[in-house]
Amino acid sequence: MRSICVLAFLGSSLCWGQADTDCKPSALNIPEAKYPCVYPDNRATFRVLAPEAQSVKIRIGKGFDMTKGADGAWTVTTTPLVVGFHYYSVQIDGATTADPSTMTFFGSGWQNSGIEIPAPDVDFYSAKTDLPHGHVSQQRYFSKVTEKWRRCFVYTPPDYETSSKTRYPVLYLLHGWGEDETGWYRQGRVDLIMDNLIASGKAKPMIIVMDNLNAVKPGESAAIFGARWLAPAPPPGTAGSGRGGRGGLAGFTGASFTDMMLTDLIPMVEKTYRVLPGRDNRAMAGLSMGGMQTFRTTLSNLDKFAYIGGFSGSCGGRGATFDAKTTCDGAFADAAAFNKKVKVLFLGIGSEEGPGTKNFSEALTQAGIHNVYFESPGTAHEWLTWRRCLNDFAPRLFRQGSESQHAARRQNASGE
Amino acid sequence: MRSICVLAFLGSSLCWGQADTDCKPSALNIPEAKYPCVYPDNRATFRVLAPEAQSVKIRIGKGFDMTKGADGAWTVTTTPLVVGFHYYSVQIDGATTADPSTMTFFGSGWQNSGIEIPAPDVDFYSAKTDLPHGHVSQQRYFSKVTEKWRRCFVYTPPDYETSSKTRYPVLYLLHGWGEDETGWYRQGRVDLIMDNLIASGKAKPMIIVMDNLNAVKPGESAAIFGARWLAPAPPPGTAGSGRGGRGGLAGFTGASFTDMMLTDLIPMVEKTYRVLPGRDNRAMAGLSMGGMQTFRTTLSNLDKFAYIGGFSGSCGGRGATFDAKTTCDGAFADAAAFNKKVKVLFLGIGSEEGPGTKNFSEALTQAGIHNVYFESPGTAHEWLTWRRCLNDFAPRLFRQGSESQHAARRQNASGE
Repeated sequence: MRSICVLAFLGSSLCWGQADTDCKPSALNIPEAKYPCVYPDNRATFRVLAPEAQSVKIRIGKGFDMTKGADGAWTVTTTPLVVGFHYYSVQIDGATTADPSTMTFFGSGWQNSGIEIPAPDVDFYSAKTDLPHGHVSQQRYFSKVTEKWRRCFVYTPPDYETSSKTRYPVLYLLHGWGEDETGWYRQGRVDLIMDNLIASGKAKPMIIVMDNLNAVKPGESAAIFGARWLAPAPPPGTAGSGRGGRGGLAGFTGASFTDMMLTDLIPMVEKTYRVLPGRDNRAMAGLSMGGMQTFRTTLSNLDKFAYIGGFSGSCGGRGATFDAKTTCDGAFADAAAFNKKVKVLFLGIGSEEGPGTKNFSEALTQAGIHNVYFESPGTAHEWLTWRRCLNDFAPRLFRQGSESQHAARRQNASGE
Repeated sequence: MRSICVLAFLGSSLCWGQADTDCKPSALNIPEAKYPCVYPDNRATFRVLAPEAQSVKIRIGKGFDMTKGADGAWTVTTTPLVVGFHYYSVQIDGATTADPSTMTFFGSGWQNSGIEIPAPDVDFYSAKTDLPHGHVSQQRYFSKVTEKWRRCFVYTPPDYETSSKTRYPVLYLLHGWGEDETGWYRQGRVDLIMDNLIASGKAKPMIIVMDNLNAVKPGESAAIFGARWLAPAPPPGTAGSGRGGRGGLAGFTGASFTDMMLTDLIPMVEKTYRVLPGRDNRAMAGLSMGGMQTFRTTLSNLDKFAYIGGFSGSCGGRGATFDAKTTCDGAFADAAAFNKKVKVLFLGIGSEEGPGTKNFSEALTQAGIHNVYFESPGTAHEWLTWRRCLNDFAPRLFRQGSESQHAARRQNASGE
C-alpha cells in the first residue's frame, strides 16, 4: 500500500486524502475523517489544512512541528504515544485551536480535540453486542445554593427500566480540573465499563450520578475553569498562575460543592430515581481535583458515605508527610472508628504519576487505616488511568451491608 | 462603563479581558468567557487570540474580517445578527477552526462553534424553575442492517419515572445534513421545549427518539457527512460539489435509514420504553434533509405512521411543479385515502427561506390534501426556525384517536 501511495503522490495529490492502510483512523474522528490515524506501534499521523499559515504544531503532551505539503495540508507523524485517551490541540500561527477532524471534549476549560490510542485491555470499555445496556440521562435541576440551573448525567443500569420496583445504590462520580459533567460519560466511557461489569456479575447494578464540580454561590469566584486565552496570565507565583494560566488549584475551595451536593443534588436524585437510602448505599469518587473534592465532602460527612474513591487525587497530597493527627484534618486519627464506618477507601493512580499516592496508601496502612491501592500500568494523569480505576473500584462497592447486617450474617453462618 | 474601558486600555491591556457591559456573553460560551458577546441590537463582538497570524476572519453566514490589537487578540463587531442559534467558524490564515471560547456543536460534519442571539420568544425554549423536567437519555443499540453500534437520544416526559405503568406515543425526530443525533437535544433544546409544552397542557406527554440520519449498509457510501477539509473539493458541477465540498445532497439516498429504522430502531424503542403501539401513536418529523428522509420513510409506510412533519424539508422540493400523480412518487394521488390515514401533515419553514414550501402547501391544499403550514417569522435555514416548528407541531400530535375512536366519540357527542 505504501508504494501505491508514493506513485499516487507523484501523479496527483489524491494520496493525501487517504491514510496509509497501516494507520487506522482514531475512534474519535468525525465521520469519514482518515486523520488523525494510529499505527500498530502507537505512532499517530495528524493532518491539518492551513494553506496560508507560517507555522502549525500539534500539542499532545509535547509539541510536534508539522510540515506543509503541496496541497496546503500540514502533516506530522509522532513518536509512539501512550495508550488511552488524550486531549490535544493544534497551534496555527500562535492560535490554540481544536483539530476540526475530531469530535471535541471538554477539558482544561475548553473543547479540545481527542485521540484514542487502543489499549491492550480495550475490551473492558468497549460496546458488546450480546449484553444489555444501561442509559445515561441528562438531568436538569435548580440549585438553591448556587441559585442557578445545573445539569448532571445519570447512569441507570440495564434492568432499571424493566425492574420497575427495584431500588439501587448510588455512586456520585466527579471529573477533574477544567472538565465538566460530560467527562465521565464521554471521555470516561462510564456506561460501557458498567454495562460490562454488571453483565459479567463483577459489579452490582448501581446508579451513577455525574455532576459538575463547579458550584459557586452568587458572588464567589468561578476562576477554576478559566481557559488560558480568556485573559492575560497573572504574574508567576500569584494565585491562579498555575495550570490554565488563570485560576487553577490555588483558587479552589470546594466549600459550595459540598453544600450544593448535600442540599440540592442528593435530595433531587433520591426524589427522582429509585434509590436505596442511607450511607451504606452511597459512594463517592472522583478523579484529580474531583478526588480532592470527594475526600473533602466525604471525610467531613461520614454519616452520609460508606465508600470513598480517589483516582489520581485525594486529600493526602502527593509527597506530603503523613501525620494521622493532622493529615486530611485529622480524619484518620481514630483508625478503628474510621474502619468501622468506611467500607472501602480506594486510592488509584497511574504508574507514571509518581510515588505520592502509593506512599500515602502505605502511610494509611501503617496508621491502621484499611485502604485499597490500585495502580494503572504505563499511564499518566489521563483518562485511561481513571477508566481502569473505575473498573477496579466499582466491583468493590455495595458488597457489604451495614454492621448489623454483618453481625446477622455471621450469626446465620455459624448457626447453619 | 465604556469610558472606564478606554482609560483602562490606555493604561493596560486588562480591558480586553472584559466585555462592554452592554455586550452580554453568549449563552453558549465556555464558562467565564466574555466573548463572543451580544449587544441589545443583536450585533456581536468576537475575540480570538492568534498573535502570529496574518489574517483572521469570523464566518457566520458571511465573513467579518477581524483586527489585531496590541495584545495579539483579534476582534470584530458584526452588523446585527438574526435571532436564534448560529453555527460559526474562525478562519486563521486559511485554516477553518472552531472558536475555542464556545462550546462546539456538530453541524456540516464537524464541531462548529455556536452563538445564541436571544429571540423575543426565548421563553418557549428556556428552563423554568417551577415545573417538572423530562430526561434525555443516551441509548446504544446494535443495528443488524448497518452491522454497527448506533446511538440515539430519547426524551422521556417528566412523569415517565413516576408513572411507572403509563405508556406513551412516540415522535421520531431527525436532524439535518451534516448534523447528528445530538442536534435536537443540544442545538434544538428539545427537552426544554417539550417540558414547557407539557407543563402548560399544550402538548400531550410523549417520548421523542432522536437518531442519526446516517445509516449505511456495509459497502455503501457515507459521503453525505464529509467536511470540506477531509479531501480536495471535487470539480464544480460534479456530484458532491455542493455544500461541504465533498458529498452533499446529491449523494443521499436514505434507503438504508428507512430499512434500519423499521428493522432495528423502532423494535428496540418499543422493547425498551413504555410505548403505545400502532400507527396512531407514532409520528415522524425532521429538519431539512431529515424532513426529506421523514417523507421518504413515512409516505411509503403509511401503515406505520399517522403524523408527519417536515421542517424546512419535505418531498416537495422548493419550487418544483406540483402534480398529484407524480410529485412524491404519487403519494398524494388519492386525497381522500391520504387524509383518512394521515392525521397531521405539517410543513414548516423560515420566512427567509423562500416561497417553495408555502407553494407546496397551497398545491397540496388545492389537491385536497389536508396540511398545516407554519412559518417562522424572520428566520432562515437555522435552528430557531426548527425550534419554532417543533413548538407548533408537537401540540398537534396524538390528539386524534383512530377512525373507530372518532366514530365512537361522534356517536357519544350526538347521543348526549
